[in-house]
Amino acid sequence: MKVKPECAACIVHRGIQEIIEATEDEIVRFQAVNELMKFLAEKFTPQGVPADLGTQRDRIIKRITENPDPYKNKKQISNRKALELFPKVKKLVESEVSTEKRFRKACLCAIVGNILEFDIPDHTFKLESLDDHMKNAEKDLAIDEIAKIYEEAKKAREILYLTDNAGEIVFDTLLVKELQNLGANVTVAVKGGPIINDATLEDAEASGITKIANRVITTGTDAVGLNSKECSKEFLEEYGLADLIIAKGMGYAESLTELKIEKPHALLFRTKCNPVAEFFQVPKGRNVAKLLP
Amino acid sequence: MKVKPECAACIVHRGIQEIIEATEDEIVRFQAVNELMKFLAEKFTPQGVPADLGTQRDRIIKRITENPDPYKNKKQISNRKALELFPKVKKLVESEVSTEKRFRKACLCAIVGNILEFDIPDHTFKLESLDDHMKNAEKDLAIDEIAKIYEEAKKAREILYLTDNAGEIVFDTLLVKELQNLGANVTVAVKGGPIINDATLEDAEASGITKIANRVITTGTDAVGLNSKECSKEFLEEYGLADLIIAKGMGYAESLTELKIEKPHALLFRTKCNPVAEFFQVPKGRNVAKLLP
Repeated sequence: MKVKPECAACIVHRGIQEIIEATEDEIVRFQAVNELMKFLAEKFTPQGVPADLGTQRDRIIKRITENPDPYKNKKQISNRKALELFPKVKKLVESEVSTEKRFRKACLCAIVGNILEFDIPDHTFKLESLDDHMKNAEKDLAIDEIAKIYEEAKKAREILYLTDNAGEIVFDTLLVKELQNLGANVTVAVKGGPIINDATLEDAEASGITKIANRVITTGTDAVGLNSKECSKEFLEEYGLADLIIAKGMGYAESLTELKIEKPHALLFRTKCNPVAEFFQVPKGRNVAKLLP
Repeated sequence: MKVKPECAACIVHRGIQEIIEATEDEIVRFQAVNELMKFLAEKFTPQGVPADLGTQRDRIIKRITENPDPYKNKKQISNRKALELFPKVKKLVESEVSTEKRFRKACLCAIVGNILEFDIPDHTFKLESLDDHMKNAEKDLAIDEIAKIYEEAKKAREILYLTDNAGEIVFDTLLVKELQNLGANVTVAVKGGPIINDATLEDAEASGITKIANRVITTGTDAVGLNSKECSKEFLEEYGLADLIIAKGMGYAESLTELKIEKPHALLFRTKCNPVAEFFQVPKGRNVAKLLP
């Protein structure tokens, strides 16, 4: 999907929150703001993809502030809080008797995990409200193609699972487990370097997913969503041979909808902003489980 | 006061809301966003004053979108809603018996009127919640120099009243009346041209303040707050001879705190963002009645 004019407000808002996290030096903060504005003055065009602009924004911020990982602390907090909630969420999945119902519940938990996010304007979330989100997960499911995803998962021998945020990745372990129970090998791919609050290898370790997945790899790059030009050979090989891709979060939804999709991709995410919600023709603040192509 | 790095997010957010109001042409919207970013890349420095940057932002938007008054419609709605609420608010002032208590209540109403505002992030307000704000007006008064302002008003023969937003100006009539009851001539100054949702002569007419005030003039310019270099001779003469200035809203607070103040200026406003709140050393979302110098 392409950017809308209002995406600029969100890109700037998140950028400034990140700049403030990254450095306490006010002069450097102003320099980073100026560089960000200069970048958007040139590159914020109707052909822009929000995920790509987010990637470039973050690289500017990391370079100017000389902080390679502004959300390091917030990511650790997210993982810790998600791990505290995990036993409760796990029970929800395990309380289902049939394989298909367990799969469905694990998908919903993975989507609810995607609600854990920092610094998107108007997207306020308290981890404590997780109970409400779990209760509303079915009702909030504006696009429900979980049954179709289940059928693809049953057929798949090799599945590539693309994670989104730290914290969220803790909940992903439940879906990885259900995918394995259907007979598939599951490779989990985290980001190749720090980018916003996206999960990296460090978060894969902290979340416990390393112990569950058949293999954990990285995308080979610190990009929001999927930037195939930058991905490692290892990642592209895995992406090429997988029978099913599970892609978490808006970043992957933004970039995968720009590619020619030739095999099943399951998008699992929450619509956290109007442009993404409008693209998928659902309201903001809803859950989406969509099978591409 | 000077900008903080986070002011950029607010300047952009309001700018983009305004661009969307101003035109439905997506190409023009992107052009306006790019121009705004280019401007901030150069001019967003630690020496910037938020009100001045807001003025320049709005001039860029009006020029690129070729819409001289993007908030025309919203301002009319604001006036209409405020007029509906006015009899109720007026009764609150009239129910006070002593002159000083009426003055105090009118100040509080004028501040609560300042809560009527569009498009400041995190500053959500429904006109319907006015009752709550009126109830909380005293409790929310983080800086209370109304008694000192009252003493200055009693001494004053000529008062200049600087208005802020459309809608709000309806409530200002109550305080203008109380100032007159203390024996002063009150000149009301609205903005010289459309700028965000600030009141202009059209709003002065619609609000009824034209019938109450001894005189209504304009600042002579479409600037946020006070930009003395741009003001008309008529305005500057009035500003020069007034014994007391009443200045409404954050825009005037931002720009007056940059000037050498040599006579009494009463600032009446709501702290709608962190940088202004921090400058006045009070929390965000509080009421301020402060006498300068």
